[in-house]
Amino acid sequence: MKSHAPKPDIERVIAEIEKNKGLQPVPLFGTERTVIAVIGDERALDEHHIASLPGVSKVMPVLQPYKLASREARKEPTTITVGPVTIGGDEVVIMAGPCAVESDKQMEVAAQEVKKRGGHILRGGAFKPRTGPYSFQGLGREGIEIMARAAKKHSMVTISEVMDVRDVEFVAQHIDILQIGARNMQNFDLLKEVGKTKKPVMLKRGMSATIKEFLLAAEYILMQGNPDVILCERGIRTFEDETRNTLCIATVPIIKNLSHLPILVDPSHGTGKPHLIRPMARAAVAAGADGIMVEAHPNPIESQCDSDQALSMEDLSEMIEELGPIAKAIGRNLATL
Amino acid sequence: MKSHAPKPDIERVIAEIEKNKGLQPVPLFGTERTVIAVIGDERALDEHHIASLPGVSKVMPVLQPYKLASREARKEPTTITVGPVTIGGDEVVIMAGPCAVESDKQMEVAAQEVKKRGGHILRGGAFKPRTGPYSFQGLGREGIEIMARAAKKHSMVTISEVMDVRDVEFVAQHIDILQIGARNMQNFDLLKEVGKTKKPVMLKRGMSATIKEFLLAAEYILMQGNPDVILCERGIRTFEDETRNTLCIATVPIIKNLSHLPILVDPSHGTGKPHLIRPMARAAVAAGADGIMVEAHPNPIESQCDSDQALSMEDLSEMIEELGPIAKAIGRNLATL
Amino acid sequence: MKSHAPKPDIERVIAEIEKNKGLQPVPLFGTERTVIAVIGDERALDEHHIASLPGVSKVMPVLQPYKLASREARKEPTTITVGPVTIGGDEVVIMAGPCAVESDKQMEVAAQEVKKRGGHILRGGAFKPRTGPYSFQGLGREGIEIMARAAKKHSMVTISEVMDVRDVEFVAQHIDILQIGARNMQNFDLLKEVGKTKKPVMLKRGMSATIKEFLLAAEYILMQGNPDVILCERGIRTFEDETRNTLCIATVPIIKNLSHLPILVDPSHGTGKPHLIRPMARAAVAAGADGIMVEAHPNPIESQCDSDQALSMEDLSEMIEELGPIAKAIGRNLATL
Amino acid sequence: MKSHAPKPDIERVIAEIEKNKGLQPVPLFGTERTVIAVIGDERALDEHHIASLPGVSKVMPVLQPYKLASREARKEPTTITVGPVTIGGDEVVIMAGPCAVESDKQMEVAAQEVKKRGGHILRGGAFKPRTGPYSFQGLGREGIEIMARAAKKHSMVTISEVMDVRDVEFVAQHIDILQIGARNMQNFDLLKEVGKTKKPVMLKRGMSATIKEFLLAAEYILMQGNPDVILCERGIRTFEDETRNTLCIATVPIIKNLSHLPILVDPSHGTGKPHLIRPMARAAVAAGADGIMVEAHPNPIESQCDSDQALSMEDLSEMIEELGPIAKAIGRNLATL
Repeated sequence: MKSHAPKPDIERVIAEIEKNKGLQPVPLFGTERTVIAVIGDERALDEHHIASLPGVSKVMPVLQPYKLASREARKEPTTITVGPVTIGGDEVVIMAGPCAVESDKQMEVAAQEVKKRGGHILRGGAFKPRTGPYSFQGLGREGIEIMARAAKKHSMVTISEVMDVRDVEFVAQHIDILQIGARNMQNFDLLKEVGKTKKPVMLKRGMSATIKEFLLAAEYILMQGNPDVILCERGIRTFEDETRNTLCIATVPIIKNLSHLPILVDPSHGTGKPHLIRPMARAAVAAGADGIMVEAHPNPIESQCDSDQALSMEDLSEMIEELGPIAKAIGRNLATL
Repeated sequence: MKSHAPKPDIERVIAEIEKNKGLQPVPLFGTERTVIAVIGDERALDEHHIASLPGVSKVMPVLQPYKLASREARKEPTTITVGPVTIGGDEVVIMAGPCAVESDKQMEVAAQEVKKRGGHILRGGAFKPRTGPYSFQGLGREGIEIMARAAKKHSMVTISEVMDVRDVEFVAQHIDILQIGARNMQNFDLLKEVGKTKKPVMLKRGMSATIKEFLLAAEYILMQGNPDVILCERGIRTFEDETRNTLCIATVPIIKNLSHLPILVDPSHGTGKPHLIRPMARAAVAAGADGIMVEAHPNPIESQCDSDQALSMEDLSEMIEELGPIAKAIGRNLATL
Repeated sequence: MKSHAPKPDIERVIAEIEKNKGLQPVPLFGTERTVIAVIGDERALDEHHIASLPGVSKVMPVLQPYKLASREARKEPTTITVGPVTIGGDEVVIMAGPCAVESDKQMEVAAQEVKKRGGHILRGGAFKPRTGPYSFQGLGREGIEIMARAAKKHSMVTISEVMDVRDVEFVAQHIDILQIGARNMQNFDLLKEVGKTKKPVMLKRGMSATIKEFLLAAEYILMQGNPDVILCERGIRTFEDETRNTLCIATVPIIKNLSHLPILVDPSHGTGKPHLIRPMARAAVAAGADGIMVEAHPNPIESQCDSDQALSMEDLSEMIEELGPIAKAIGRNLATL
Repeated sequence: MKSHAPKPDIERVIAEIEKNKGLQPVPLFGTERTVIAVIGDERALDEHHIASLPGVSKVMPVLQPYKLASREARKEPTTITVGPVTIGGDEVVIMAGPCAVESDKQMEVAAQEVKKRGGHILRGGAFKPRTGPYSFQGLGREGIEIMARAAKKHSMVTISEVMDVRDVEFVAQHIDILQIGARNMQNFDLLKEVGKTKKPVMLKRGMSATIKEFLLAAEYILMQGNPDVILCERGIRTFEDETRNTLCIATVPIIKNLSHLPILVDPSHGTGKPHLIRPMARAAVAAGADGIMVEAHPNPIESQCDSDQALSMEDLSEMIEELGPIAKAIGRNLATL
């Protein structure tokens, strides 16, 4: 309560708390002000409602607002198995492929190369969230089909982004893992829609999302009955302008502590600069990431989007070679197909 | 180019630029490095593609990437008239109403009160983007109908948020101005969909969006043939934790300089604290905002969402009374119904 | 406490709190975890120490950590009178002058012009904190003397920055108000040193300082026995790159609410763009600022530093003319000399 | 230039550029606007002055503003040898010790333990920059002497922060490496002062400093003739509130690319949470950091400051044991004494 809040204000707050079954208010009368502690699951309480009552100075929640996503809900880590690949287990997984799906030929080469170089999952964007309307927006459903064909030919597991609720069913029919991009992390209708599918979902952290909001977005998907959520840190927006985003490696151990969900890192979007991808991939694995997602293109210079941040297939090989010893150093291994 | 980039690299970049009709590369040979200037509309060029060429150090665009939204495309300000209200003209407009539509009765009182207190447009949320899945998510289409009925009864112009592409048509049938919330500023499919309607659209700035990205999001709507876009600053995310967001008043004169579109300010979400709403509304109008959007509830304490930031109707009156003289001081007036 | 923290951990925390006279621990046993409330002035407690005890999950302070700077310490606003000017009272004060002191002639013209145009206090930098070592670093003590001479001739009150503890005494002998720049807001030795003088001190907010840290920096000065602290918001660092900094106008009503100290706004550094200075100065006054500090140069193009953000004297006149009606609209006036 | 800038404006800018010896302006006449390229070392030009000329829209520097700190000035990495320890070479160095020097006994145990556990350099703060004036401010010069005695007894190299220009000489007499804290990164007088000593200086990145500003601060020290500058990333301030700061691991490869100076990482201040220190230390070494600085206390719970982020000596052992294999994985080793 505010200092010197009048008694009726205090009584009103107590009454409002008591309206919630299972909550018990405990007023603590200090010298300067009264604090009203609440015993019980405070998530039953509308924090903003209490904050709006007269005489209230601040509401300070003690518990985390997510449940299904929390470590307390589930002690052992969630592992997600798609074909021959398990995410969230002892082994570190590599997702790689071009930023945008461009053609059958490009994707076939990509699938073959990613597999040959040691990657486990093929990525490729058919629906591209582009900052400006004049940029290439992706091939859409045709791109999804191209990708599915290429992956099938080379027995690769696939991941691709879905942006529009109307495309969820179609993408879920062709692609193994649905990706929610950073810009849609709080597109709640989309989260609900992918939560209704039976496909694993990789949720990327929004550019300005706190860890708490990130886990609450995961909670939206989990709540629909889909337990297979993979998280992916891809950088947050800060004042630093040497990199496209500030890749927050600490997200990895923080998530490992708060949640049972697997956490990957995307150093391509997280830095926007090819020469930073390899060191940041190493850092992510050293910090305990369950995998790495990178852009790799058979011919980066010909890439139709974000080509300035794609690795060549040679670079991809070198990155994967470097990650093996790092994983070993912390008692893990790279996955093998 | 990087310092000491080899000649073939330089020649390749020149060749790539020349591939674009209307672009003329002009190499400038300095002592440390070569800079390749480009004459022509650089927006024809894929910046990321050029950046990925060997030997390239940095691509520095000179022009803004948006066209339709820019002052250069249209010198005179865009004005948008909805019923008796004109937005973007000489007069300052007030949008007010509850955070969430709750019932017929609540909205009727809200419509009546907002009008009586001097507000011009009735706001109210039927689709609520809530950070957590356990919070009240709004009444949905039923809420839209409730709002339309209440507004009709009191001859009020309405604005309400649409979140899901599948609801755009429905909302456009009942509501006068479609609102795109901050979390959906880069939900590009939604932008395209509202761009196809004939209703004015108010686009709120994303929490981590630069001004450039904000105008590019507007460009998505404009490109679909809908010229009636209203911008709304509602705060960006920073380290400061005294307020829910950092309300960036400078956005107002910046937008006025770069664009012809009207710009409003939302001090409710921009601060999250009732006692800051009035001073920030005054600041916005003093800086040249075309209007103010605020949350006002007939009974804030009973409000079902974000009630801690809603004004009471008495506060709304006082805010509007204060804004009149501020508007006058800079040669404008509050609109009258 | 962490959920399921063992009993000895809980007992230890209680014992540690009891070590502090006047503090009373109140354990609240919830279903998931135990919370230990503390009654008494928690500022006696070392938050970090308690946080480090085994089993502790989080320490959540209820009180603000500053005392002398708080509204609770002093209800009525602090007013500071320097010669004919009072800061923090009913009247709005204008501080103007060149970024850097360059010559006797320049400062004499500046003093004369600022006074003629309606400014109240002459600013000018002799010690310049420049990001790079190759930029002009100011005339130093000679600049202070130049400024003092020019101000004396035109009977102007002066303000100038001091950066080095070894210069405090010298500057205090010649200048009326000592300024602590944003980069030195947490240069604690400097704060202590100006706190020992009898001159008013204007403290600028650091680029990454929270409001709490800003007031704690003021507390450092107040604690030394100097009650005359003026605060100045000059923008914080965010991802937005249209302006040099993000000028946080909300700081004005926030400070008015938390503290009794006067608060000014500097729209020159806060935006870094001349065309944004006037609208942001209006916004600041509309929000309740006690004054405005701007850069104004008799001949901006010849200015030796930051000339791109200086107003001409004509612009200064127009700004001041605009601010009068804004001040009136909220029941204040511009000061008169 | 602005679009349609009049000819005299263009001519004036050209004339101003030509005033600088060695700079050659090259006007490029586009369809919408004129761009004036500059050939030569643009650092001779005052960017802000040009920006202030009539008709100028934007100044876009091509070169980095620092010289001595840049890779171009010196291709091979700077290595700094202090007693038996070399920083910036092939081996990774550990600096550890308590946040604050408290007593002879505490520092003797710390010195002995840090050495035994595999640390190379003893840290300890005698001058403590504390956010609030009521927190323990350190033992000052006495603390420096205590530390020097303890280190001598155990033949340890020492590092300690200096905050006040008046203490530089004293600290330099007793301590091997002078540390400039994050809050003083732009305390330019202090930078100049430590630049005049012959002791190595470790410069911590400011909480809101860009990489460019960080290197410009190093440039201030280098310019005084002191070549032995060590950089240290310790986290920047962002909206994320799970950690005290956002530790930016990408700084390591960015600095390696732009500069020849060694770069260390401080995961204690960078996270503020003990359970994040080990994973972030691993990440830093994996990314190529030349060393790690951590807080470690013989008895963290008794620590007088920031005790919540100090490792115990057992944790320090485990951290160092983990870092060995990570260093090996990238072809380096931990240093040995």
